[in-house]
Amino acid sequence: MNHIEETARRMKLESPVLAACPGEQRNEALSRVRDALIAQKDRIFAANQKDLARAEESGVAPAILGRLKFDDHKLADVTAGIDQIISLPDPVGKISLARELDQGLTLYRESCPIGVIGVIFEARPDAMVQISSLCLKSGNCAILKGGSETRATNQVLFQIIHEAAVSAGLPEDCLAQADSHQEIDDLLTCDRYVDLLIPRGSNAFVRYIMDHTKIPVMGHADGICHIYVDRAADIERAIPVVVDAKVQYTAACNAAETLLVHRDIAPAFLPRLAEAFREEGVTIRGTREVQDLIPCEPADEEDFRTEYLALIISVKLVDSVEEAVRHINLYGSHHTDAIMTEDPNAARTFMSLVDSAGVYQNCSTRFADGFRYGFGAEVGISTGKIHARGPVGLEGLMTYKYKLFGQGQTVGDYASGKRQFHFRDLPEQEG
Amino acid sequence: MNHIEETARRMKLESPVLAACPGEQRNEALSRVRDALIAQKDRIFAANQKDLARAEESGVAPAILGRLKFDDHKLADVTAGIDQIISLPDPVGKISLARELDQGLTLYRESCPIGVIGVIFEARPDAMVQISSLCLKSGNCAILKGGSETRATNQVLFQIIHEAAVSAGLPEDCLAQADSHQEIDDLLTCDRYVDLLIPRGSNAFVRYIMDHTKIPVMGHADGICHIYVDRAADIERAIPVVVDAKVQYTAACNAAETLLVHRDIAPAFLPRLAEAFREEGVTIRGTREVQDLIPCEPADEEDFRTEYLALIISVKLVDSVEEAVRHINLYGSHHTDAIMTEDPNAARTFMSLVDSAGVYQNCSTRFADGFRYGFGAEVGISTGKIHARGPVGLEGLMTYKYKLFGQGQTVGDYASGKRQFHFRDLPEQEG
Repeated sequence: MNHIEETARRMKLESPVLAACPGEQRNEALSRVRDALIAQKDRIFAANQKDLARAEESGVAPAILGRLKFDDHKLADVTAGIDQIISLPDPVGKISLARELDQGLTLYRESCPIGVIGVIFEARPDAMVQISSLCLKSGNCAILKGGSETRATNQVLFQIIHEAAVSAGLPEDCLAQADSHQEIDDLLTCDRYVDLLIPRGSNAFVRYIMDHTKIPVMGHADGICHIYVDRAADIERAIPVVVDAKVQYTAACNAAETLLVHRDIAPAFLPRLAEAFREEGVTIRGTREVQDLIPCEPADEEDFRTEYLALIISVKLVDSVEEAVRHINLYGSHHTDAIMTEDPNAARTFMSLVDSAGVYQNCSTRFADGFRYGFGAEVGISTGKIHARGPVGLEGLMTYKYKLFGQGQTVGDYASGKRQFHFRDLPEQEG
Repeated sequence: MNHIEETARRMKLESPVLAACPGEQRNEALSRVRDALIAQKDRIFAANQKDLARAEESGVAPAILGRLKFDDHKLADVTAGIDQIISLPDPVGKISLARELDQGLTLYRESCPIGVIGVIFEARPDAMVQISSLCLKSGNCAILKGGSETRATNQVLFQIIHEAAVSAGLPEDCLAQADSHQEIDDLLTCDRYVDLLIPRGSNAFVRYIMDHTKIPVMGHADGICHIYVDRAADIERAIPVVVDAKVQYTAACNAAETLLVHRDIAPAFLPRLAEAFREEGVTIRGTREVQDLIPCEPADEEDFRTEYLALIISVKLVDSVEEAVRHINLYGSHHTDAIMTEDPNAARTFMSLVDSAGVYQNCSTRFADGFRYGFGAEVGISTGKIHARGPVGLEGLMTYKYKLFGQGQTVGDYASGKRQFHFRDLPEQEG
């Protein structure tokens, strides 16, 4: 047994203990985490300086350096985030079904933590704080592996968080840190002990995880998001939204990669959009029809399957909202797709038929985010349809169990007809 | 592209259309299915006679023959089941979150079908009717593959169900049948088009499915269920429950395989239990301590990892409810486990710390069943913690999507501070 497997095995046995800790205790742990982060900020900043110096030496781009940084501003953000998570209602022990099956035989379905979660995330020190806070609040044990570019910062943050959590009486094995790349591979084989993996990072990385483990994986590989500009779109409204969806943060999974335009509105809309895109430095790749309307590069079939994560957008004309829907369902990654239209029927068709975690009318795909949905924080965005979908906050970290309380009932008595079920739903209460 | 892949691809494109069919139309389809089954019962029975004759020729055991049979009694059961499913509320389009993010920017989380589901089930003609009814009610497209021993019956049932569903206006591709064993393997590779697989059958079969596909799998391989007889158990109450859990239907996944007994109660309890088990023909395999108390075969480590599915039970003594919990969490299959106790503290500890889909106090593990939970029917029992857990009825066949309605909002305005989110939850309503 390697180190990670031993850790995961201990966690699996301890996870019901963490799950059974009262909500006040988990909140107390979070509040100690917040206080400890503030009290020990100089230690964190010093470690972060080392990471930044190493990154600068190895020639990391300035935009990326900003993400690696952990300063007073980031500290204020994460402590505000912890306060928000503390203020959210306890997701553990919620009763979603209470039913008397027969006299003296009562069934409850009660929310409980998933158990042991492995989270592998990019080099962003604030992510370490957010993810561990969400796991503690939801009563889940977590093995955390952050990007190696912020290794020193992660180590200090983890020590502070873990110590604070344990000081509040949470089990020693509530959180663990994985440090080396080899430990990711070790984690992937722990399917007996780890209930869920949440990988965040590049497509290639997420696909690697999905292809090399039997543990359920929550997340997304591709983010091929679409905006469809309908015949009944308001052009004044559509242009800033399309521009925002493409340029506001091109590296994000919820940035738009393909624009579909209704044939009837294309001659009026596309030249104006092309001008707006030119100002932002966006390269347009269009089908032949699009090339007839605006100057652009040619788009081929492959473009419509590509997540550019760059200032490039593919553009195609369609005949109807239905054709747009078919294109999106076939080429998209079921992440987030938007329609620009003032026609309620077109909107209804689109919102109902597009098979994605998020479907939007008249706003930017960039809203697909746990913070913007009011979840406080997110552990990731899921394009899976099994369990959590879309931005995943506390609720997505829960499962449930059925509790049945009897007085000696046997199935034999019901099979023989001696007793009958009466199935009476009860007012929901604590189980 | 093979036949199954072509079918799955068409289904994937048609699945949003089925999902958007109103609940009344899906109920109308179910009511036509029921009527058609009754009207064409002679055709079904004739096909079933062929299957039974073939099974008898090949020397199938009488107990199994009973499961293959489809007669007036089974027909009455499945049509009553369809009526119950019709009477259940529509699971599609339920709003579980309605939140104004900002003025004119409103988010809904709305339940929707999972999409395309592949169900592979044992040779029981009634399962064909139950599963297709649950899929139609929940708006899911389904590829159905039943056990080959009832191939003729399945073909007729499928034709009748499919014809009735399409006659009510549901899409042609709402249901499809897979017929040959090769088609199961074809189905396993359709991860682009199939959203979920539900395999039912032997451990080996379910494991084969889990190991050979990238499609999420819902179900269970093992059913290693435990009963723990606590120090504070009522012996009169415990004996019939333990016997029921073992013998009422030994081949079921929710039958008990291991009995844990508190050391303090073992001398009084085990001899009486051994007598009751002797009458039922149950073989006891006990640890050395158990052998000192009652005559039995020796149990080794492997026994505690074995799903006997036969009149055999392994027995072990423990010192406390905590030790029982640790044994169950380590050796069990997280399916259903019960405690017999009159002590509310012991019960609370057990119900809270056992990490299984079902945890029971003072009743038989055999209650773990969709019908007995009042779900009408079940597509299977899940030991997974991601998505549905325990017996899976309509709710387990749903996922959700986020719908966001705006008026031209861009994320840039919120990032720059020009606008702020105000997150106001709305009374829940149709989205």
